[in-house]
Amino acid sequence: MEANKLRIADLLHGADYNPEQWLDHPDILARDIELMKEAHCNVVSMGMFSWSMLEPEEGNYQFEWLESVINNLYNNGIYTFLSTPSGARPHWLAKKYPEVLRVEKNRVRNLFGLRHNHCYTSPAYREKVAQINGELAKRFANHPGVLLWHLSNEYGGECHCPLCQEAFRNWLKQKYQTLDALNDAWWTTFWSHRYTSWDQIESPAPHGEMMLHGLNLDWYRFVSHQTLDFVKWEKDSVKSYNPELPVTINMMYYFYGINYFDTKDLIDIVSWDSYPVWHKAGTTDLEIGCDTAMMHDIMRSIKNEPFLLMESTPSMTNWQNVAKLKKPGMHMLSSMQAVAHGSNSVQYFQWRKSRGASEKFHGAVVDHYGKSDTRVFREVSELGQRLEGLTPLTKTCNQAQVAILFDWENRWAIDDMQGPRNIGMHYKETVQQHYKAFWKMGIPTDFVDMSCDISKYKVLVAPMMYLLRNGFEQKIKAFVEAGGTLITTYWSGIVNETDLCYLEGTPHGLMDVVGLRSEEIDGLFDGETNSASATTSSWLTQSESYTCSELCDLIIPSTAKTLMTYNEDFYTNQPALTVNSFGQGQAYYIATKFEDKFYDDFYAQVLEELGIKRPLDTALPEGIIITDREGYLFIQNFNREAVIIPALPTSCHLIDGDKDIHHDFTLNPFEVLIVHN
Amino acid sequence: MEANKLRIADLLHGADYNPEQWLDHPDILARDIELMKEAHCNVVSMGMFSWSMLEPEEGNYQFEWLESVINNLYNNGIYTFLSTPSGARPHWLAKKYPEVLRVEKNRVRNLFGLRHNHCYTSPAYREKVAQINGELAKRFANHPGVLLWHLSNEYGGECHCPLCQEAFRNWLKQKYQTLDALNDAWWTTFWSHRYTSWDQIESPAPHGEMMLHGLNLDWYRFVSHQTLDFVKWEKDSVKSYNPELPVTINMMYYFYGINYFDTKDLIDIVSWDSYPVWHKAGTTDLEIGCDTAMMHDIMRSIKNEPFLLMESTPSMTNWQNVAKLKKPGMHMLSSMQAVAHGSNSVQYFQWRKSRGASEKFHGAVVDHYGKSDTRVFREVSELGQRLEGLTPLTKTCNQAQVAILFDWENRWAIDDMQGPRNIGMHYKETVQQHYKAFWKMGIPTDFVDMSCDISKYKVLVAPMMYLLRNGFEQKIKAFVEAGGTLITTYWSGIVNETDLCYLEGTPHGLMDVVGLRSEEIDGLFDGETNSASATTSSWLTQSESYTCSELCDLIIPSTAKTLMTYNEDFYTNQPALTVNSFGQGQAYYIATKFEDKFYDDFYAQVLEELGIKRPLDTALPEGIIITDREGYLFIQNFNREAVIIPALPTSCHLIDGDKDIHHDFTLNPFEVLIVHN
Amino acid sequence: MEANKLRIADLLHGADYNPEQWLDHPDILARDIELMKEAHCNVVSMGMFSWSMLEPEEGNYQFEWLESVINNLYNNGIYTFLSTPSGARPHWLAKKYPEVLRVEKNRVRNLFGLRHNHCYTSPAYREKVAQINGELAKRFANHPGVLLWHLSNEYGGECHCPLCQEAFRNWLKQKYQTLDALNDAWWTTFWSHRYTSWDQIESPAPHGEMMLHGLNLDWYRFVSHQTLDFVKWEKDSVKSYNPELPVTINMMYYFYGINYFDTKDLIDIVSWDSYPVWHKAGTTDLEIGCDTAMMHDIMRSIKNEPFLLMESTPSMTNWQNVAKLKKPGMHMLSSMQAVAHGSNSVQYFQWRKSRGASEKFHGAVVDHYGKSDTRVFREVSELGQRLEGLTPLTKTCNQAQVAILFDWENRWAIDDMQGPRNIGMHYKETVQQHYKAFWKMGIPTDFVDMSCDISKYKVLVAPMMYLLRNGFEQKIKAFVEAGGTLITTYWSGIVNETDLCYLEGTPHGLMDVVGLRSEEIDGLFDGETNSASATTSSWLTQSESYTCSELCDLIIPSTAKTLMTYNEDFYTNQPALTVNSFGQGQAYYIATKFEDKFYDDFYAQVLEELGIKRPLDTALPEGIIITDREGYLFIQNFNREAVIIPALPTSCHLIDGDKDIHHDFTLNPFEVLIVHN
Repeated sequence: MEANKLRIADLLHGADYNPEQWLDHPDILARDIELMKEAHCNVVSMGMFSWSMLEPEEGNYQFEWLESVINNLYNNGIYTFLSTPSGARPHWLAKKYPEVLRVEKNRVRNLFGLRHNHCYTSPAYREKVAQINGELAKRFANHPGVLLWHLSNEYGGECHCPLCQEAFRNWLKQKYQTLDALNDAWWTTFWSHRYTSWDQIESPAPHGEMMLHGLNLDWYRFVSHQTLDFVKWEKDSVKSYNPELPVTINMMYYFYGINYFDTKDLIDIVSWDSYPVWHKAGTTDLEIGCDTAMMHDIMRSIKNEPFLLMESTPSMTNWQNVAKLKKPGMHMLSSMQAVAHGSNSVQYFQWRKSRGASEKFHGAVVDHYGKSDTRVFREVSELGQRLEGLTPLTKTCNQAQVAILFDWENRWAIDDMQGPRNIGMHYKETVQQHYKAFWKMGIPTDFVDMSCDISKYKVLVAPMMYLLRNGFEQKIKAFVEAGGTLITTYWSGIVNETDLCYLEGTPHGLMDVVGLRSEEIDGLFDGETNSASATTSSWLTQSESYTCSELCDLIIPSTAKTLMTYNEDFYTNQPALTVNSFGQGQAYYIATKFEDKFYDDFYAQVLEELGIKRPLDTALPEGIIITDREGYLFIQNFNREAVIIPALPTSCHLIDGDKDIHHDFTLNPFEVLIVHN
Repeated sequence: MEANKLRIADLLHGADYNPEQWLDHPDILARDIELMKEAHCNVVSMGMFSWSMLEPEEGNYQFEWLESVINNLYNNGIYTFLSTPSGARPHWLAKKYPEVLRVEKNRVRNLFGLRHNHCYTSPAYREKVAQINGELAKRFANHPGVLLWHLSNEYGGECHCPLCQEAFRNWLKQKYQTLDALNDAWWTTFWSHRYTSWDQIESPAPHGEMMLHGLNLDWYRFVSHQTLDFVKWEKDSVKSYNPELPVTINMMYYFYGINYFDTKDLIDIVSWDSYPVWHKAGTTDLEIGCDTAMMHDIMRSIKNEPFLLMESTPSMTNWQNVAKLKKPGMHMLSSMQAVAHGSNSVQYFQWRKSRGASEKFHGAVVDHYGKSDTRVFREVSELGQRLEGLTPLTKTCNQAQVAILFDWENRWAIDDMQGPRNIGMHYKETVQQHYKAFWKMGIPTDFVDMSCDISKYKVLVAPMMYLLRNGFEQKIKAFVEAGGTLITTYWSGIVNETDLCYLEGTPHGLMDVVGLRSEEIDGLFDGETNSASATTSSWLTQSESYTCSELCDLIIPSTAKTLMTYNEDFYTNQPALTVNSFGQGQAYYIATKFEDKFYDDFYAQVLEELGIKRPLDTALPEGIIITDREGYLFIQNFNREAVIIPALPTSCHLIDGDKDIHHDFTLNPFEVLIVHN
Repeated sequence: MEANKLRIADLLHGADYNPEQWLDHPDILARDIELMKEAHCNVVSMGMFSWSMLEPEEGNYQFEWLESVINNLYNNGIYTFLSTPSGARPHWLAKKYPEVLRVEKNRVRNLFGLRHNHCYTSPAYREKVAQINGELAKRFANHPGVLLWHLSNEYGGECHCPLCQEAFRNWLKQKYQTLDALNDAWWTTFWSHRYTSWDQIESPAPHGEMMLHGLNLDWYRFVSHQTLDFVKWEKDSVKSYNPELPVTINMMYYFYGINYFDTKDLIDIVSWDSYPVWHKAGTTDLEIGCDTAMMHDIMRSIKNEPFLLMESTPSMTNWQNVAKLKKPGMHMLSSMQAVAHGSNSVQYFQWRKSRGASEKFHGAVVDHYGKSDTRVFREVSELGQRLEGLTPLTKTCNQAQVAILFDWENRWAIDDMQGPRNIGMHYKETVQQHYKAFWKMGIPTDFVDMSCDISKYKVLVAPMMYLLRNGFEQKIKAFVEAGGTLITTYWSGIVNETDLCYLEGTPHGLMDVVGLRSEEIDGLFDGETNSASATTSSWLTQSESYTCSELCDLIIPSTAKTLMTYNEDFYTNQPALTVNSFGQGQAYYIATKFEDKFYDDFYAQVLEELGIKRPLDTALPEGIIITDREGYLFIQNFNREAVIIPALPTSCHLIDGDKDIHHDFTLNPFEVLIVHN
């Protein structure tokens, strides 16, 4: 993030702060500032749930309390991210303008309640939001303590009201121009579903249409579009008084309803709310760390800039199945992991636990107990102190030669398919299997979708490209021709942008690049497996065989060379892994879903051949992950036990603390070390 | 099927064909005909999803494209089954006549969408269907290429709209005449539910009445009746222009909502759509084969004539949990199995995969790829060629001495019971345990319901006759008295036609036939078992004991002889299997649900005593099934491995191929051999 | 129960009787009386489902049949509990006054159907109920055969109609007086939910508000209040003609929707309907016996007087997953268990099985078979005969020194929490773990809620007092100060009456009593465990360690002494069990959910220290339970096998039968012996 985005150079440390809940406790508000300083906090997010206190009745704005808090904080060295209040509307608004409440898929309008319960199309909602946003901007957009606009809160959800139906139809008209074009694109002749008038179109419904995949896909696109259009509306409403004050929206974990890549040019800074289920039964913290790391990398990749960790918990997450405590050290590790992957902040929801309502047991910096002599407060303070020493990091950003394709439109389309495996295609999990191999080696990776430029990378990993957006095959072709290395898999190039099957062979547009054609694909039940082994001519010989599952593509190579073949079922000896030379580059095709070990071995060889090096050429114990933020290496112990790390090269120097890293040294459970190389 | 039913003598081979999806691709339509000939196809089903193309706006009929396709096919030796289009109505119809859309149990009217979404009562729907059917009949009923009317598609579902409520009340008035009669029949005094006016009667609803079993049962009957009344309406609408052209409806796998036995006199030919989950995890292809065989036998039994396999897949079924490929040979086996049980056709859904919408990945003869050099196309062609040599089979039909009772009304009543086992009575599965014993021995069986004539059989197997329709006990009595052998079980003769319990002892009306009375019945939890062993006086001594589960009837024999007794719990040594002589016949009573092996051993002995012989007196390996179609024996290998078959008697001769069957020979995985004996 | 409550001194034995179903079978009605006498029955409950027969059309009362039955019974020595018919309204009533039907949470009004389907607020319903109740009272309240009013049937359920919304708002106005008070109490500032007008308040809804815990909790209270207000309405309507005739309501197994402790002053006699799943797979009859015993003890505790077992089954329960038969002897055991815990009756639903409708397979004294030569009838008769010999018992009642806290409001609040463990806090099960230790030792226990007087007990067991009603901490303090022994646990004193968290440390108000503060609580996944062992200074040394699970409280002792510490995770060696001296008493704090064995060992030691003795100082085999009803000891064998009981002290004498109990003797499976000590 550059200076014109956020006015300060420090790493940020702070929390969502909801003083409106405590206005009748001035002692508590005063104590908060003392405690924030004790915890080394320099920022709060405020206002996201304050509408009913900021405008208790229509047009009656009460901003004094907010200004007073902002001033007090600023006078104590604490900045404010100011939120627009649209994430939770007041009762009077819903009572006066019922259209602001959402209509669900069943076409029943919600009652007032919860948070995500407003129609993004409603003119009434847009108007009232713009009014209060404008008033807030007028008062605060030039306040020296206000650093950033935090638009609304965790945008999401959909509405099926008549206003949204109309907006959807208009969006379709603009996209398709004619009903014939729409009928063709959605293949409505099947089951006699041809539309003969625009007003016959209805959003998907459990008691109406739900199997017309073209409709479903366009509905996903429309909902994402309409939500981001609302974001733009809010952004415009606050930019008028100070166009320089940047805006962010706080995004969510692999959120489904918004194509986050489409926020790239809309917002100034990316931020997100991270709530991993650390210490979850049946898995390891290493696995959870990988899942979180991938999300951090996606967030950084949207703008290819540092992002903000807008929310996290210093302790338990009350809405998860089991609210486990973070074990000692895990708060340091999980916070530093965010910084390692490009975050310029560590922030919490929330500063102080609410006394009532649904999140009162969510972990916070300050407990109901109210004092600082708690384990949680101590760990937060230690982190705050350490972050103060890492200011130079804010000017750096992770640099990748490897791009991984993770495409929201493809994700929507895959999940909506009927066949070949209705009990789970596992798109995200499959992408993550590939990612994990790189993450464990410490190789930086960016994420791209099909709208992104891929020409600058050396390697493109593109699993399960079911929906191949029109023209993306040309980008891939050019990429490989110019010397790039493509790794793709089964179930790629199957349908076009409106989910119509490509004719005359798959993977569409890439049969020459990969040098093969897919003839059939076999679905396996959960628990069913096959396996594959290297052919004698192959270089991949580390393991006798790798188990595979879920889907087995049966392919017919043309120019591709077979590296591995299946070991079981009627397709024994048919190819399971191939490589093809194309132009200056080469293209691998993985025909099935392998176990993790395959990806470790496979990518190690691919990278070796390409001369892409790991940040440290040291054999490290299991569970030790190195993340490279432009030369700053974060050495992270995801084990519950201490481990011995071999001496690091002399080129490395320690950024903080006083370990002797040039001899073998110990990393405690969940400990993080930062070195520069 | 006799000549007046279908004008040609050949076995049919073909597919659902949806050319309306490809009208703007004349090259593809032309290629289709070439490929059909290459695949040895002689029939297609057309028109079932074509309404929006046949009548794009009300009263504007566009039949030219259809006539052109029918003509082209006919000129190339391919016949047409012409479908009425009522299975999927066009948008304009639902928009103009909202009453055509169904109302669900919750009393909310559906939006337009999916297929089964029309009210069978609606006068508007009936009128528009009759109009287009009439137009189709006028144009095509005398076309030489049209062989059969395929009415609508997979009739089913129910509607709770005001029109249906009214029709239901009228149906009840006709049935019961007075409210007093209805109140008595449904036992409404319980819980103060007595009706005092006909308009108080509502169909079952989750937010209304759902525990009044008499009401539920009559609702099932009404829905079945109303659907078949609609079938009759459609039939009448097409018969006017050529009463000789036969009609069929394509039925579904053990479909619940229609009493298929009631179609006997309504339709000219029975047909059904078969989609077994071959190669399913956790079971064997032999088990799946048995389940499919039973459904084939039910279909043949409805009219006691050959039927048609109207739909099947040559490859994967996209709407199943996992879309597995049919392994090589399975397509031949599953198709020939249908013929073995009485089918005169093998047909597919569909000829060519659609480009879009919900069934685009359903296996078809022609893939999106578009050419014939695929494994699936080759296997279809091989089958087509083989079927051409089997023309004499169409004049034969399977002949049975054993009848098995499978009664739709009993099925509805059992599933709606409260007690004695609400986690599963498994009526169909229980009937199938009995069936399996005969199927594995190669003994032909017919299926009957309580409305059928049973006098012509030697053996009647009647498991769990919970609902004993009024008077059926007299048929059984006459049957046994005349020398028949009855096998019945626990939980028989419990309620009458309106689900009122019979008083004064059960099995009602049969206590003298079986020579016992049931006193209590114990429910067992899943996983709980008991077992039973032969008494010393018994002839059933093959096994030390047989495990039983689910339900244990505690019976008090009068004249019956005890053959087996329980081994555990407080009813140790009480009878578990009895036999009673009655008139010229005898009646067995099986008091509990045994493991499969019991039925194998038990029926082997029963048949031996009765002198009913297997079609081949040869010991065959596990997984080899022989099915006897009037002297044509289909020897089917349901194993994934090849097996050795002992030399067949010299009386057998091979129908096609050139194996030497009079010496030991090999059957490959899924191979089928047809011999005549 | 004293004389002014029920006019007769005998133990009662009888059943729900529904003669209105058999009015056209006078032979059956006559036979019923013969059979009742054969079964030693002296009471029936009548009329609960008779409204449609008592008032077939509005205002047309037909009571002759009822009077005739009551007279016949009375002339044969059989008394009547007369039910008001409001538990199942007739069709005509719902048709004429639609407001009597319930509106569900989704704001959709039910159709007529089932039983619990009437609005307790509806003026129309109240009026029609009062009218027929008044007519019944006028006719029968002074009938010598009528012993008791049985108001309605199993009250329960909730309604969200506009009338109930209005009543709810009025109830809230009365409770909170101002909206500000309500907003503060519910902490509505969170998520901007502040109410600015009373009419913005709506009951919880899945499509509206459902996460505002203060609202949810008050809704539970309102529903319970409104239901009991309806009970009062019914009571008033029948008391006018004979204020001396007592009333009861038949309660249900751990029913959720009514705070049964609030019925204490409303009804004259407590009764309940008990349907344990005896012989359930995966558990033991001993466990089920404990669960049932606890419910009996709760029922007795409500008024601290004998209660009635109003319903039970002599055989199977048709609506359970599996309708198992009661094994021989279990009927005696389960019936006598009720008497042992304070019941003055054993009654059944129902006398004779209905012929139709949803409960026709529910076990009854008389089967559809209709005669008395059945196992069930024999076991019922044997019980009836034995009860006739136990008349003196009706004047006794169980006496306890130990009270266990089971609080409905706390239960509602715990189940509605978000965090710390959303997959199950198991409040009832946790309370039962404590109860079981006492039950197995034969120590009588009473149940209390936070409104009860606790000063008379020696021991108060109060697990998981999450919601500590305002002021209850003072009762506890006084109790311990005066010498009482308190046992409480983790997750106590967390929130106040409106679910607002207490500030400044927990357990609120009790930190001095228990001598510690809770800092954090860790949630464990299902299957995850920790364990704890005694510190060397502790007296609890029977076991090396006890497993614990679900929740681990991390506490900081001040004056408390640590008795046990954790063995695993980062809180190894932190306290898991403490004791604190406070005033004349002491307070134990159990920090985690232990396995059963812990409670056995722990309470054995606590009772020994307090000098509280078991009723018999004899080592008994596993599965033998002794229950002490004021000197009458019921020795109950919950095993399926016979066991040997050591000779009882000479102070014991047998109440019925002729065993020699002063030498070792055998108890058969499920046998019950009654001795006086």
